[in-house]
Amino acid sequence: MGSKSDLNIMNDAAEIMKAFGIDFEMTVVSAHRTPERMYNYAKDAAKRGLKVIIAGAGGAAHLPGMVASITTLPVIGVPVKSSNSIDGWDSILSILQMPNGIPVATVALNAAKNAGLLAAQILATSNPELAQKMQDYKDDLRNKVEETAAEMEK
Amino acid sequence: MGSKSDLNIMNDAAEIMKAFGIDFEMTVVSAHRTPERMYNYAKDAAKRGLKVIIAGAGGAAHLPGMVASITTLPVIGVPVKSSNSIDGWDSILSILQMPNGIPVATVALNAAKNAGLLAAQILATSNPELAQKMQDYKDDLRNKVEETAAEMEK
Amino acid sequence: MGSKSDLNIMNDAAEIMKAFGIDFEMTVVSAHRTPERMYNYAKDAAKRGLKVIIAGAGGAAHLPGMVASITTLPVIGVPVKSSNSIDGWDSILSILQMPNGIPVATVALNAAKNAGLLAAQILATSNPELAQKMQDYKDDLRNKVEETAAEMEK
Amino acid sequence: MGSKSDLNIMNDAAEIMKAFGIDFEMTVVSAHRTPERMYNYAKDAAKRGLKVIIAGAGGAAHLPGMVASITTLPVIGVPVKSSNSIDGWDSILSILQMPNGIPVATVALNAAKNAGLLAAQILATSNPELAQKMQDYKDDLRNKVEETAAEMEK
Amino acid sequence: MGSKSDLNIMNDAAEIMKAFGIDFEMTVVSAHRTPERMYNYAKDAAKRGLKVIIAGAGGAAHLPGMVASITTLPVIGVPVKSSNSIDGWDSILSILQMPNGIPVATVALNAAKNAGLLAAQILATSNPELAQKMQDYKDDLRNKVEETAAEMEK
Amino acid sequence: MGSKSDLNIMNDAAEIMKAFGIDFEMTVVSAHRTPERMYNYAKDAAKRGLKVIIAGAGGAAHLPGMVASITTLPVIGVPVKSSNSIDGWDSILSILQMPNGIPVATVALNAAKNAGLLAAQILATSNPELAQKMQDYKDDLRNKVEETAAEMEK
Amino acid sequence: MGSKSDLNIMNDAAEIMKAFGIDFEMTVVSAHRTPERMYNYAKDAAKRGLKVIIAGAGGAAHLPGMVASITTLPVIGVPVKSSNSIDGWDSILSILQMPNGIPVATVALNAAKNAGLLAAQILATSNPELAQKMQDYKDDLRNKVEETAAEMEK
Amino acid sequence: MGSKSDLNIMNDAAEIMKAFGIDFEMTVVSAHRTPERMYNYAKDAAKRGLKVIIAGAGGAAHLPGMVASITTLPVIGVPVKSSNSIDGWDSILSILQMPNGIPVATVALNAAKNAGLLAAQILATSNPELAQKMQDYKDDLRNKVEETAAEMEK
Repeated sequence: MGSKSDLNIMNDAAEIMKAFGIDFEMTVVSAHRTPERMYNYAKDAAKRGLKVIIAGAGGAAHLPGMVASITTLPVIGVPVKSSNSIDGWDSILSILQMPNGIPVATVALNAAKNAGLLAAQILATSNPELAQKMQDYKDDLRNKVEETAAEMEK
Repeated sequence: MGSKSDLNIMNDAAEIMKAFGIDFEMTVVSAHRTPERMYNYAKDAAKRGLKVIIAGAGGAAHLPGMVASITTLPVIGVPVKSSNSIDGWDSILSILQMPNGIPVATVALNAAKNAGLLAAQILATSNPELAQKMQDYKDDLRNKVEETAAEMEK
Repeated sequence: MGSKSDLNIMNDAAEIMKAFGIDFEMTVVSAHRTPERMYNYAKDAAKRGLKVIIAGAGGAAHLPGMVASITTLPVIGVPVKSSNSIDGWDSILSILQMPNGIPVATVALNAAKNAGLLAAQILATSNPELAQKMQDYKDDLRNKVEETAAEMEK
Repeated sequence: MGSKSDLNIMNDAAEIMKAFGIDFEMTVVSAHRTPERMYNYAKDAAKRGLKVIIAGAGGAAHLPGMVASITTLPVIGVPVKSSNSIDGWDSILSILQMPNGIPVATVALNAAKNAGLLAAQILATSNPELAQKMQDYKDDLRNKVEETAAEMEK
Repeated sequence: MGSKSDLNIMNDAAEIMKAFGIDFEMTVVSAHRTPERMYNYAKDAAKRGLKVIIAGAGGAAHLPGMVASITTLPVIGVPVKSSNSIDGWDSILSILQMPNGIPVATVALNAAKNAGLLAAQILATSNPELAQKMQDYKDDLRNKVEETAAEMEK
Repeated sequence: MGSKSDLNIMNDAAEIMKAFGIDFEMTVVSAHRTPERMYNYAKDAAKRGLKVIIAGAGGAAHLPGMVASITTLPVIGVPVKSSNSIDGWDSILSILQMPNGIPVATVALNAAKNAGLLAAQILATSNPELAQKMQDYKDDLRNKVEETAAEMEK
Repeated sequence: MGSKSDLNIMNDAAEIMKAFGIDFEMTVVSAHRTPERMYNYAKDAAKRGLKVIIAGAGGAAHLPGMVASITTLPVIGVPVKSSNSIDGWDSILSILQMPNGIPVATVALNAAKNAGLLAAQILATSNPELAQKMQDYKDDLRNKVEETAAEMEK
Repeated sequence: MGSKSDLNIMNDAAEIMKAFGIDFEMTVVSAHRTPERMYNYAKDAAKRGLKVIIAGAGGAAHLPGMVASITTLPVIGVPVKSSNSIDGWDSILSILQMPNGIPVATVALNAAKNAGLLAAQILATSNPELAQKMQDYKDDLRNKVEETAAEMEK
């Protein structure tokens, strides 16, 4: 994440990692305040064995796109509606509208949970056990809605 | 893709698949005109051995999100600035703003090329050869810019 | 409705149904978490004797459009300004901007009351008693404004 | 429609009426240039036996909402991206955002075709033959997509 | 004004009328709930001796434009950020974007005070005493800023 | 107007002046390139006998608001969709959103014709002959719509 | 600044001036309420020895652009999300979208701190000591992020 | 600039540099395709004697902000309405909305000419000759408007 103030949003991604039993690390790397640290972090990510990077930032959110420009790993971008953001529009457009050649897999505003699930889906493409857990997760979502519906219909 | 009219955009993804030597299939599945076909396509995708799904659509673009609601595979959404779209805003928001639990990896407006690259990056997480090709692709992008710069500085 | 959290909005539609003496049912059907349930609900709606469907959802709101893609009944869509929505723009555009062939009768943001009234107007096209009640309702609105005006002018 | 210049858009609704064998009339009523004519048209519509009104307009588009304020019939509003409209946003918001008590069934920008289909669906709620035609129409949409898909897969 | 809930905004216009010693009346006329009353009010306004009409409304705000379509008096429109408005955008566009032939003099969102001042300026075009009061008002604004500046510079 | 390039838009206002037999002058005054000229023009306007000022500008359109800050005359602002404007949004907001104390009577994007009509309405508040011409103009608008309607109904 | 109510935002710029040891003055100059004062302030600024002007304003924010039209000094504009602003969009567009010939160096919404830093960077182009302080400031930003990161990784 | 396709826009800045007799260099540095080159370019800029950097880019435009994060020089950002941009909104917000600590002096969409003028103004803060040229440039702008006005008034 680009700032410690994004922690309460980005924590949702960590919760998903834990729920799916996926190893992860979590740190602060600022594209604007620590450009060299960001460069090195992104440069070494694949070598250190990381498989997917989730990057969240707000306002003129350059972190996800800059990390994606340096690494070959898939980068998931989380637009954060930070205090300096204009209703989140700047965060979304700065992350989503990457030029051809450098994709960022963008999720909804503040949707760090979905970023975690997308990371799990990516890893599940080569991990059948994780794919099964994802199916269980979806079944669980469905069951909860059906229970709510049954209750409401009473 | 949701309509044959999206073909000239979505073809960019197919070009990337070919360039990276990745097997793929390409078809039209409309969330709104063929909901049952869409359901069956998404339901069977993982069983048929697909690893990643790229779905492009415009206007009230429900295809990527609905496919993501049915499959456990990662789904990449391409907002298309179709003729019935309001400058692309409807396409983007309908694909990006998925609720918690059901992520769609959204790329930039009309960025089918980036959707293809993101699919390749996802597959490369378990395929070192593909990861190397991705590195070569990035090196190529860099070289082209450096050549342009050298030319301009002269 | 797509989620129980939409209940306090969607309840306004139920109030109108009761006020006009129209039979109705109310349940939770999530396009994204229970796609099969949604499919079956929409598929059977006409056979079960439903005449109009009101569907409310927020964010990337696919429920109204997906239901409309499956049933031949008129579908009224209520964009909900849910907590994950960007000021309601995503909800509105995801519901309103349906492609040619599959209309959704969209009402204003959070306007479940108007969705109920529109459903009553639709049923009133073949029910003169209901049409009269609608006229009474409009007369009542007028009278209230005139009373307010009279008060203010004093 | 509010102006003759909307004719090439609004004609799509007439085409649907003809295709479904529904009687209709088509005229120009301007909320702003002929307010009295609009008032009388809307006031008499139900008495004259009209069942549904489709009103299209652009810019500060007051016609659909004003007609809805006068009649008890369901009113379908078509936001038109006219020459004086700001990318259609003014047309959409002026029609969609009606206050509680006075609904307008709004369809997508320029979607007069969908307005025609919605009118047919409304009439079909009390006309089984029309309901069957609507089902045939939907089957036709599906078949066309499936043919396109079959072709593309070859 | 279109609704009693606009009173706390529209009152600012009344305060200006009082401060400039201009006779005025203030009432509720709803374009959507009392269309006939609105028609009659606008039709008779000039005959009754009114010189300028200030109309405020929110959401799909048709009151100012509809009044302008009926009277030949100048109509000043105040977009109100009412509870059912999308951040005021719908109110602004519904009032501002009038078609050629029917102007509405639109002021800023919630700026009933400026509507009152504009009405005074209009009347002042044929009333030198009022023009002098307007000059005094402007001098007063200037003096207050200069006092604030002097204070801050200390 | 702020620039000669606005002439083809602003000319519509001049046409209205001529049609209503109102004396007027037309010149270029740029808030940004000739601030002193603008100051003097606005300062002397009332003394020179002007009654209403119409000011059109595009982009960060400061001319109407700055003129309004200097004169006590009513100022009508025309947002122009100039080549450097972002779809007209900047022009509209820069003119419309004036602070309390300094109104600008804003008309629709590019609506110089309506600016001319509004100026005529303002002058007509103390000129019965002009008021009658305005009524004739409105009658003419109505007649043209009714003719179009009669034609279309045939 | 254009109004005393902008003080709590604009104070951030003063804090930076103090931190970098730069002489400055701070006052209220309203483009709309004190146009003559603004003109004189801007006209004399360079002669009085000022090097850079920071101007903050909200809504239809004309102060930065008007000052820039009068002086040859670089003008930094701070869009303020004031109470009469529409989420800050009007402030941003009124300041940013200046026509060719008259630049305003615009910073982010409410970013008076960045305006102060930009002023310091401008002065540092001819002041090596200030340039060194700017480097120290950046090093400090970096160190703080690295400390936060070290903490979080524990 | 970030891409050779921005050349026809960014050339306007070069023209200003030449007109004011300011030495400059012009090259392509892509934040996303050549992140290392960008890092080195920005890192060495001050040492190589550069005083101001103008960076133009479109879409998710990270170049100006990233350069500003690395250098202590003032960075002027030009949002370019490139082919992959959504009407320029993404370019503007990605450049303008920088976090506290890292300013970018943003100019209007496509306003490379103003970027050049702003650079000249910055250099003129320590170069009286350049300040005089800037005054001459402004006088020239004024004269041209006055000539146009004189012509039009005839």
